[in-house]
Amino acid sequence: MSKFWSKRAHELDPYTPGEQPQNQQYIKLNTNENPYPPSPKAIEAMRAAADESMRLYPDPHAKSLKQAIADFYDLDIEQVFVGNSSDEVLAHTFVGLLKQDKPLFFPDISYGFYPAYCGLYNIEATKIPLADDFTIRVEDYEKENGGIIFPNPNAPSGIALSLEDIEKILVANPEVVVVIDEAYIDFGADTAVPLIAKYPNLLITQTFSKSRSLAGLRVGFAMGHADLIEGLERVKNSFNSYPLDRAAIAGATASIKDKAHFESTCQKIIATREKTSTALEAMDFTVLPSKTNFVFAKPKKADAEKLYLDLKEQGILVRYFSAPRIDGFLRITIGTDDEMDVFFKTLAELLD
Amino acid sequence: MSKFWSKRAHELDPYTPGEQPQNQQYIKLNTNENPYPPSPKAIEAMRAAADESMRLYPDPHAKSLKQAIADFYDLDIEQVFVGNSSDEVLAHTFVGLLKQDKPLFFPDISYGFYPAYCGLYNIEATKIPLADDFTIRVEDYEKENGGIIFPNPNAPSGIALSLEDIEKILVANPEVVVVIDEAYIDFGADTAVPLIAKYPNLLITQTFSKSRSLAGLRVGFAMGHADLIEGLERVKNSFNSYPLDRAAIAGATASIKDKAHFESTCQKIIATREKTSTALEAMDFTVLPSKTNFVFAKPKKADAEKLYLDLKEQGILVRYFSAPRIDGFLRITIGTDDEMDVFFKTLAELLD
Repeated sequence: MSKFWSKRAHELDPYTPGEQPQNQQYIKLNTNENPYPPSPKAIEAMRAAADESMRLYPDPHAKSLKQAIADFYDLDIEQVFVGNSSDEVLAHTFVGLLKQDKPLFFPDISYGFYPAYCGLYNIEATKIPLADDFTIRVEDYEKENGGIIFPNPNAPSGIALSLEDIEKILVANPEVVVVIDEAYIDFGADTAVPLIAKYPNLLITQTFSKSRSLAGLRVGFAMGHADLIEGLERVKNSFNSYPLDRAAIAGATASIKDKAHFESTCQKIIATREKTSTALEAMDFTVLPSKTNFVFAKPKKADAEKLYLDLKEQGILVRYFSAPRIDGFLRITIGTDDEMDVFFKTLAELLD
Repeated sequence: MSKFWSKRAHELDPYTPGEQPQNQQYIKLNTNENPYPPSPKAIEAMRAAADESMRLYPDPHAKSLKQAIADFYDLDIEQVFVGNSSDEVLAHTFVGLLKQDKPLFFPDISYGFYPAYCGLYNIEATKIPLADDFTIRVEDYEKENGGIIFPNPNAPSGIALSLEDIEKILVANPEVVVVIDEAYIDFGADTAVPLIAKYPNLLITQTFSKSRSLAGLRVGFAMGHADLIEGLERVKNSFNSYPLDRAAIAGATASIKDKAHFESTCQKIIATREKTSTALEAMDFTVLPSKTNFVFAKPKKADAEKLYLDLKEQGILVRYFSAPRIDGFLRITIGTDDEMDVFFKTLAELLD
């Protein structure tokens, strides 16, 4: 606390990310990082970008990256926005599109950064409770609101909403922006990108941090009608003209062009996830049906927080949320098969 | 314009950066980039960081970089804040420290991004006219205000304020935050860092974009009392947990440790600047006394805007501001001696 802080700074409720120990002693299954390396072409492109041209500003529009994303999703470049992580893209979305007179709707159990943005930009929000089975009830989003945002698949539940249900929400809310946060979309759920042509109020955000193994590069993007993108550009140009550095533009561009690497990585993670869910159920966990690179699972006969602490002591980090409704669960990122084998061996010993 | 934009998005007045042509056909003297390459150690560090570990999030606290900056300036790590360019650092400063009930003061002729931040965060500002000789009048900042920010040296004037004058402003304003934006400090002016120990309301921002030749890497920082830094951390953690990517942390850390490269680069630019000022005066320009890596100069017998356009046609980009009081000036970034020779040759032909 300081008398020099603004009232806003005093009132903030900052987000707490998962632990990021700066040594290598843990098996990290706690921040949904990809256990497989990024595309070798991305690494090559980042290294090539790290040359004397670093003395020059990057392209403020990051056109090469926007075009590569547009090509991947068969969109126009004007329908793509890029930023320094999807967190930055989301922040700009909150102030540029979701700050309205009526309250913003998002699920009570969802990405923990949404309330932090509301604090930063003084946005009124209503948290909509998920159903008892942790699914989003479409009818709850058919009430008057100033905007809607939810992850699909949702986090930390991992549960995906069908495109049919997403379309119902869009149809019911033609006057407000509906943001689908697709951070985990590439692990088995259906992207809403094909709906962009039909719904000018649909904005989709994605990230290079998960399915493209580039959490360390900080690149995210949004897709939607050109008018929505222009709104985000206005915010960006009132904040930072050049949010993406030269290495980030080059690496992300090369990454999205390497479709084969991306698809094979996602397939491996999906296969390990299915094995993980089955194994956890066999060990007496309730496992929510995940379409992400993590599983959200509740030990039926053990205390989740204690299990988290015991696993940490054994060198395995998973994520535990001390929050209503989910404090009986662990969020376990899908690692390599070898990492999951160690995890299961350790878990079996702890539960024995 | 779109009905989906927030009221805030409608009202924004985004900043317009200098032209960034994506081809190499111009001699670029328009965006104050450094004509010399970054430290070879920074390039090496960025390349080493571009490996398979990019799959992992970076250190959210960027401790290695903060420590290197603290070491350089003989500060504690708690007195250092880092961000994705000094623009981002400034943005967080505006909402976290400078958004107050009373109006923020900054010079009428100054960095064009300040009004953009005021628009983004709904901050009331009063623009304080510079004196006729484009200097800051200390007594103008001794009136009631909610905060003060100005660049030192100022931009685009290039004129530096003495530490004595800065201290007078600090003494007169103990209850508000005074931000000194030292983007260009390393080209001959005195940093206010030694005043941090004495004034808990002093915040200093700097960038790696100019004196350290890393405009393409997007790294900026702030220094001040730990309470001010904590306020900035609260904003950062409500916006983006990991603003700096792995390559940026590694490159900037190596850069600030390479003091010899930094000092020799700055000295070369200062020498060329002095020659440039003398040459421009000989060509009938009024040249403001610059302590930066650019000169702000007014052709006495030619139209500045026409000269800007003619130079551009000849392959040389300088910056022209179509704004009251300064629309007779050109801002000319200091290039290499070879680049400046071409510039002078072309200028002589155009003025002939």
